[in-house]
Amino acid sequence: QVTGPSGEGTDAIVILEKTPFQEEKVSDLLKKHTKLELQMHNDIYSTYHLYPPPELSEIKTTVVYPATEKHLQKYLRQETHLIRETWEDYKNITLPFIQSQSFSIQWVYNILEKKAETDRIIHENPDPRDGFVLVPDFKWNQNQLDDLYLIALVHRREVKSLRDLTAEHLPLLRNILQEGKEAVAKRFGVPGSQLRIYLHYQPSYYHLHVHFTALGYDAPGSSVERAHLLADVIDNLAMDSMYYQKRALTFALRADELLLKKFQEAGR
Amino acid sequence: QVTGPSGEGTDAIVILEKTPFQEEKVSDLLKKHTKLELQMHNDIYSTYHLYPPPELSEIKTTVVYPATEKHLQKYLRQETHLIRETWEDYKNITLPFIQSQSFSIQWVYNILEKKAETDRIIHENPDPRDGFVLVPDFKWNQNQLDDLYLIALVHRREVKSLRDLTAEHLPLLRNILQEGKEAVAKRFGVPGSQLRIYLHYQPSYYHLHVHFTALGYDAPGSSVERAHLLADVIDNLAMDSMYYQKRALTFALRADELLLKKFQEAGR
Repeated sequence: QVTGPSGEGTDAIVILEKTPFQEEKVSDLLKKHTKLELQMHNDIYSTYHLYPPPELSEIKTTVVYPATEKHLQKYLRQETHLIRETWEDYKNITLPFIQSQSFSIQWVYNILEKKAETDRIIHENPDPRDGFVLVPDFKWNQNQLDDLYLIALVHRREVKSLRDLTAEHLPLLRNILQEGKEAVAKRFGVPGSQLRIYLHYQPSYYHLHVHFTALGYDAPGSSVERAHLLADVIDNLAMDSMYYQKRALTFALRADELLLKKFQEAGR
Repeated sequence: QVTGPSGEGTDAIVILEKTPFQEEKVSDLLKKHTKLELQMHNDIYSTYHLYPPPELSEIKTTVVYPATEKHLQKYLRQETHLIRETWEDYKNITLPFIQSQSFSIQWVYNILEKKAETDRIIHENPDPRDGFVLVPDFKWNQNQLDDLYLIALVHRREVKSLRDLTAEHLPLLRNILQEGKEAVAKRFGVPGSQLRIYLHYQPSYYHLHVHFTALGYDAPGSSVERAHLLADVIDNLAMDSMYYQKRALTFALRADELLLKKFQEAGR
């Protein structure tokens, strides 16, 4: 809790993350450590505690302030349960729930309108219907490619999630797949065959976006119960325009999430 | 390379690992940092670089010395690449490759024939066409439920992988989903809603099997480029019996895998 200007307690979320090693700094680590303590020695194997100087042990720190109750819940660790959502469940439970929530996506509009993060844009296709902006995700500090993480945010604003997609969106999705790969190869030298390109369902915000992560990076949210490969989405829509308005979709919800309660109340 | 007592160069392996945060030291991190730099600010979100003092950023260091060529190979990172395999690719490249290999799956037959691991069987449906055996995976020591991992091995022997499945296999797959969940709930008290139930493509052996892992466990091979939820597989086959003989499938191969070379030789 942080005391705000009004004197009232206001919550802040502070996220601390150790960052991957940078290859070019590994020899510095071995040379410039402040202390090296032998822990164990057995045959050809030994282990040590190494204490690096501060400049070689950056911690990525993210602050959300002021944080609402909803922000707090998002980051607390919780038991999770899988939901198998039919199209009827989506219409009757999930969609009304999404519409009743007012999670601000002003930060997305800030990026799309060039009011924030303008210098971070990696690629843009400005077409209002089939265009998008590609930016590094907040989670990536851009110091090393091991945990490369970018987000494509679409310019059109009425597409909430995978559930809204039809064949009408194929040109947009194909642009993201093709141009996104090209832009990442050009800027970061990472070929398309080493990128995991996918959507989340449920997404964490309801403005259509696509995740680009390094294939070697075990990115949070890349597991099968949440991620949908963009290439599969495109093939499914090409096969059946209404695929995502027919098919059941699985996703995990934390025990304290209101949407889980809605499913339970509906007897699902 | 380290110069040994003989004067000859001898290889050493040095493994550096950042260690998890210790909960009781998190407040120290926030108070005793040596520097805090603002990186980005947008709406309620901001990110910082935090540089901790050495004693709060221990690196676990393991040394293997002297290291043989085999030690070196074990620790060298292999690049992986995604393949998007069409049905034609499967017929022309993957299937001939699988058939040319003689991966022994005797251990699977030993389990199915009760010649091994008989006391480990959690559940069996003995039907030769639609039955299966459920056993704990080798990777799970059964000491805690956090990393619960079981495998369902089907009794029929001619189904190599996801690619062979048609609507004919629906009764088998539905048995695995239903009876597998019930057996895990009964034996381990873990409800079906907390199980991730999926197939791998490519699998590591070509006798059809289904993975059951704890939803909260970030199991290796549960990411979207390898895992296919059994519930999705069932729905896809119910919609189109030939779904897996039509659709392109994505999977990752390590740079040194022979199958990748086959795809490259075929110009894919």
